[in-house]
Amino acid sequence: MHHAGAGDMTTSTSGLASTMQANLLVLPSRYANDFRDLCLRNPVPCPLLEVLPVKHYNSRLASHSDIDVRSDIPAYNVYENGRLRETVTDVKKEWTDDHVGFLIGCSYSFETALKNNGLAPRSMTQNIAVPMFETNIPLNPAGVFTGGFYVVSMRSYKRKDISKVREITRAFQKQHGEPIAWGWDGAERIGVKDKVHKGESDFGDSLLVPEDEEPVFWGCGVTPQVAVKNSNIEGVVLSHKPG
Amino acid sequence: MHHAGAGDMTTSTSGLASTMQANLLVLPSRYANDFRDLCLRNPVPCPLLEVLPVKHYNSRLASHSDIDVRSDIPAYNVYENGRLRETVTDVKKEWTDDHVGFLIGCSYSFETALKNNGLAPRSMTQNIAVPMFETNIPLNPAGVFTGGFYVVSMRSYKRKDISKVREITRAFQKQHGEPIAWGWDGAERIGVKDKVHKGESDFGDSLLVPEDEEPVFWGCGVTPQVAVKNSNIEGVVLSHKPG
Repeated sequence: MHHAGAGDMTTSTSGLASTMQANLLVLPSRYANDFRDLCLRNPVPCPLLEVLPVKHYNSRLASHSDIDVRSDIPAYNVYENGRLRETVTDVKKEWTDDHVGFLIGCSYSFETALKNNGLAPRSMTQNIAVPMFETNIPLNPAGVFTGGFYVVSMRSYKRKDISKVREITRAFQKQHGEPIAWGWDGAERIGVKDKVHKGESDFGDSLLVPEDEEPVFWGCGVTPQVAVKNSNIEGVVLSHKPG
Repeated sequence: MHHAGAGDMTTSTSGLASTMQANLLVLPSRYANDFRDLCLRNPVPCPLLEVLPVKHYNSRLASHSDIDVRSDIPAYNVYENGRLRETVTDVKKEWTDDHVGFLIGCSYSFETALKNNGLAPRSMTQNIAVPMFETNIPLNPAGVFTGGFYVVSMRSYKRKDISKVREITRAFQKQHGEPIAWGWDGAERIGVKDKVHKGESDFGDSLLVPEDEEPVFWGCGVTPQVAVKNSNIEGVVLSHKPG
């Protein structure tokens, strides 16, 4: 839910974010089936880890049985009718008996594996949020969720390392898996080349790609949040605060 | 594997095509993991129904235990090093002990449901192959399968019927599910508007969209075949003959 940084997955002793690294999205129950379909039809940007039924606030994926996802995440965004209403540190009041929670895989999960192979991404070593971009790749629609495009996270590598990077992250199938595009031609194909080249980003921090490296793009768990925001659904939607 | 036509799913008494309606693709075993990943990462155009391990030629999805997928399909394409070598009615010789088979869902499965709701597509009632188009939507790459775009099948409906059509086909999750695009703006977004407008098609038969109707597009099981063909993999690849 935040950039836990090197080693946190194993050394941290408390908290949901650092122990399971997932994206949280909470919706009124009438949208739950459509949202589940959206995830199942778009598993690369929206890998569904777990559904929390109404009145369930503990994830089976968490390291502690006393985790309460309504308060154990650093910060939450509260949306009402598609607009950000506020950012809070506890959503026990907003998470009603009609809300269903979804946990979505997160690419930070594979960064430790990259680091262990001498391929730590710069965003990780500098402890900043990975740069994220909205692409031109449309999501497969599902019910009310008819809009939306893939959001990708970007890390840069030397051209010779890209096949190794692809191979390492391929195994993390529930955490976006291998990249969806790489190289400057890949950046152009998914519609983000100019922004990447200028060191801009749509979400997260910004990073210039060094001259001897090329951008590599993975599906990103911010995708479902943007899709939900764009779908004009009614009522209160909750999410972890990205970044 | 072919357009079985109205009622065949229930009235036919023999044959793989009419009883299970699936797309077949057979690859050298060294590509099997990458191809499985390609399907799992692109479940809408490539819904994986079953993997047939080496030396397995009977599908658990078939209605008869004596079905042999090497000979019970009307016709097969044999590719060698990415090029069509021949079309045959039996592949017992070509399907070696090193080949793995994949069965992919087929949109013909939901046409009976559409018909039962008074929404039979014209390709079905005219007993012609549904028009298919290669779009501009890139597949999520997987291992050696780094190229390829969604192929879609097209059926046309009155605008007022599209939400019903979406709803009916949504349930067929392993047969491409609900449409990925609809309307002329949808056709434009996925890069096929001109061809659809002219009544052309990339695969299958051609059909002009009547003036009071709009095109509706579903993921299509020809997608993985095109992806494999574009990936320059070596050796002998087998598939059912589409259409």
